[in-house]
Amino acid sequence: MKVMLGVSQNTINRLPKYLRCLQELAEDGRTRVSSAGIAERLGLTSSQVRQDLSRFGSYGSQGYGYDVETLMRSIREILGIDRTHKVIVVGVGSIGRTLMKHLDFEGNNYELVAGFDTNPMLIGTQVHDTPIYSAEELNAFLAETQVDLCVLAVPQADAKRVALHLAKNGIPAIWNLTNVDLELDLFPVVVENVHFLDSLFSLTFQLEAMQSAMARTARRAQ
Amino acid sequence: MKVMLGVSQNTINRLPKYLRCLQELAEDGRTRVSSAGIAERLGLTSSQVRQDLSRFGSYGSQGYGYDVETLMRSIREILGIDRTHKVIVVGVGSIGRTLMKHLDFEGNNYELVAGFDTNPMLIGTQVHDTPIYSAEELNAFLAETQVDLCVLAVPQADAKRVALHLAKNGIPAIWNLTNVDLELDLFPVVVENVHFLDSLFSLTFQLEAMQSAMARTARRAQ
Repeated sequence: MKVMLGVSQNTINRLPKYLRCLQELAEDGRTRVSSAGIAERLGLTSSQVRQDLSRFGSYGSQGYGYDVETLMRSIREILGIDRTHKVIVVGVGSIGRTLMKHLDFEGNNYELVAGFDTNPMLIGTQVHDTPIYSAEELNAFLAETQVDLCVLAVPQADAKRVALHLAKNGIPAIWNLTNVDLELDLFPVVVENVHFLDSLFSLTFQLEAMQSAMARTARRAQ
Repeated sequence: MKVMLGVSQNTINRLPKYLRCLQELAEDGRTRVSSAGIAERLGLTSSQVRQDLSRFGSYGSQGYGYDVETLMRSIREILGIDRTHKVIVVGVGSIGRTLMKHLDFEGNNYELVAGFDTNPMLIGTQVHDTPIYSAEELNAFLAETQVDLCVLAVPQADAKRVALHLAKNGIPAIWNLTNVDLELDLFPVVVENVHFLDSLFSLTFQLEAMQSAMARTARRAQ
């Protein structure tokens, strides 16, 4: 399901970056910031920052800028992370476990309620204080607990089948870490396909480009 | 260091997506594809696909489209992943270990040569067949081995100090998973700051938007 809001995907994608920038400013003891100040930290233009934030009703005052705490609170509200979201992890391999360890540290109101796996060694144990159940217990669990979000970290071969099962059983949001693109347009479910390697490839590209440029400069200097 | 190439960051960011799309097509036994076919799978327009690929000298033939294997090979060359890159992991906690496990499976010519950590329980062991050395051995290692890329996965508090140390010791590329934005503009090093949570926040935003839209529809139907 695609969500139409009149807000571009690029703007949505920038909101977490604004939030991170504001959190850093707050940690540094800053109470206000200009659009130019935000823009510089994020490599954007001031007008882009003003435009993005005005889409959500946040206007900085001329000569004062934005109040850091207020803007941070607004963005958390817009993103929805001021409310608690119940999260399950399906597939508790190394990726699933790593996320379970790190997610609950972030203080962003994600409440890890359960993990599910098919590995008998894991079932009945706890991973970072979260109980791990058998995959067969998933339906009964979903019938009892309103889960907001599923972290999907099963093996690639199982990704589509498990995602379809989750969608059919009323999971409204899937954070898909399987590296298999999922499309579940027939269901009322939003999906975010995460591809860790994409950013490594981008980095490799930049590395090659930098090294080519340096080699050219060196040849010219000879 | 910023790499200027006359190619937009957005185009660069799309290359891994094109590659993934082509790999899926190849796995399905497809030998050719049109720009429209690629565009549909990636949610882009055909003209954007043609424009992106023409920037790198790949032109599909009218009525034939692109040869999947050829285009895949070109993109791998452009990204630089047709060559082998020597990789070290600095910080072998759960994130570092998870990546060590998954990176070498991908067949993208990343050669994991060593991990470094300060934990005495890890030093001298192997993680997924890669030896783990003491952080104190890092400089000597870099003097002997030409490392192309460092996966940085140390705790947040150490991120800036360790990154600076790596840059000073000639590491040309850092894949930064610490969730702390790094700027090392004074050094000939390219950095990719990865923020896992950004995509989770985007998903949460979409979830809230979808649920609001569904609630409105339900109210209207009453």
